[in-house]
Amino acid sequence: MQLIDGNKTAQIIKDEIKAEVSAFVQEGKRAPHLVAILVGEDGASQTYVSHKMKACEYVGFRSTNLTFPASTSEEDILVAVHNCNNDPNIDGLIVQLPLPKHVDYMKVIMSILPEKDVDGFHPSNVGKMVMGLPTLLPATPYGVLELLKRYNIPTSGKTCLILGRSLIVGTPMSIMMGRVGVDATPIMAYRHTNQDDMKKFLAMADILIVAIGVPGFIKGEDLKEGVVVIDVGTTRVADASKKTGFSLKGDVDFDSASQKASFITPVPGGVGPMTVTMLLKNTLEAYKNANIF
Amino acid sequence: MQLIDGNKTAQIIKDEIKAEVSAFVQEGKRAPHLVAILVGEDGASQTYVSHKMKACEYVGFRSTNLTFPASTSEEDILVAVHNCNNDPNIDGLIVQLPLPKHVDYMKVIMSILPEKDVDGFHPSNVGKMVMGLPTLLPATPYGVLELLKRYNIPTSGKTCLILGRSLIVGTPMSIMMGRVGVDATPIMAYRHTNQDDMKKFLAMADILIVAIGVPGFIKGEDLKEGVVVIDVGTTRVADASKKTGFSLKGDVDFDSASQKASFITPVPGGVGPMTVTMLLKNTLEAYKNANIF
Repeated sequence: MQLIDGNKTAQIIKDEIKAEVSAFVQEGKRAPHLVAILVGEDGASQTYVSHKMKACEYVGFRSTNLTFPASTSEEDILVAVHNCNNDPNIDGLIVQLPLPKHVDYMKVIMSILPEKDVDGFHPSNVGKMVMGLPTLLPATPYGVLELLKRYNIPTSGKTCLILGRSLIVGTPMSIMMGRVGVDATPIMAYRHTNQDDMKKFLAMADILIVAIGVPGFIKGEDLKEGVVVIDVGTTRVADASKKTGFSLKGDVDFDSASQKASFITPVPGGVGPMTVTMLLKNTLEAYKNANIF
Repeated sequence: MQLIDGNKTAQIIKDEIKAEVSAFVQEGKRAPHLVAILVGEDGASQTYVSHKMKACEYVGFRSTNLTFPASTSEEDILVAVHNCNNDPNIDGLIVQLPLPKHVDYMKVIMSILPEKDVDGFHPSNVGKMVMGLPTLLPATPYGVLELLKRYNIPTSGKTCLILGRSLIVGTPMSIMMGRVGVDATPIMAYRHTNQDDMKKFLAMADILIVAIGVPGFIKGEDLKEGVVVIDVGTTRVADASKKTGFSLKGDVDFDSASQKASFITPVPGGVGPMTVTMLLKNTLEAYKNANIF
């Protein structure tokens, strides 16, 4: 069994990005610039945005955090997006979700210029992903693909079970696994799936990607010998032994699954660190697309 | 075994559309208007377009066939699309594929205004389909869903095997089967799929949708008792007994598959007639979206 080290891989990619940015800046070009729009005082959202800003700093990006009070009107958020769309000094724009309930988040997402939508959530980018056209891919499934690639894990002809069908992970992941060049056979299963069939899928999967948010849901005894296990789940579970009072748990029971797996991601330190890194990669991509070199 | 009669279902839907159009026209509104752009003298393409125009006539749509010589430049085709986009008297626009080789067909598709893209091929519409947002769905998979619905075939929790991953059928079909409200478990298999796993998928599938273009590829002995079989394949096979010199064959060996199936589509007369009908439905939808009533 080989551990897929997301921290190490993310670090390598960040250093690649850093080197590229540094070369651009030495040529006299401005640095890539990512803007995050944050509405309200949700603690988790603040933490996520601050991680993203810190990662920007590391690779030499300029970053701006536009924070608005929770009471901000939808109209005012749309104006802020519009201004970012029109600012040639901004390459990437993300709106941290969730937004307050009085705001139609889909309307906000759809107002972002697709070329600056570095989260890859805009329908136009989602459609291009389906069609195999160059686009900005959603960060988490993009990170999973990158891990498979950097660990030289073959995907062509492999049966790939994706658990969960969220718009952020499961759905785009199952689309990406079936695209030309990846060529795996995707099965997208979720809570509606027939339970007998689910057992068979688990026993057949060469690659298993789990994103359901149920700690320890997948046990090793259900898996195929040699399976590649990618655990996207990260749930906070109370843990008195930690200073924070909680620890992060994946959807996979690591101890039993690692007995069967040829490769496995830990939680934390697997997929997690890749997400912010792929957001940086998308921002660099948007920057390069916008600037004719 | 119950036969899924695509001709009959298509007729019912066309009559529904006809009644709606007639009501609009009686209110003094103009009829919906579909434009088809056809480039070159490909016989099959001419036949398809003429079928579409005839169907428009039946339901009371206005239709226009813009035919260009095969030598027409990409620029001139883009101008034609642009003019249709800007014409408020045109609701739906389709560009018959294939286009001549000197034309970048993806560029042409992407130049169609998404609101008039009644083939549902534009990335923005494809993305909305993925995200479950209201949009114009690609006609063939939309027709399959409509057949399942009109025959009261349950989909929630059913294991659905889709064979083929084309952008016109297999890929959107597998996305649509996994969406909220349909709630099936999609497996998208194709020529890269592991053959042992393929056998297991065939034996597990509650719903089988085949779009690979290999006549008689699927045999009844491989299928689950009670499976719902949807055959999208239509290949011309030489047949001296026919006036035309050919007959249409599906991807499913009908005689053996119908022994196992609870429902099955014939070829011809199954999915085929639904495709043009759903194109009409999309055109009516585009018309209704464009006109504020």
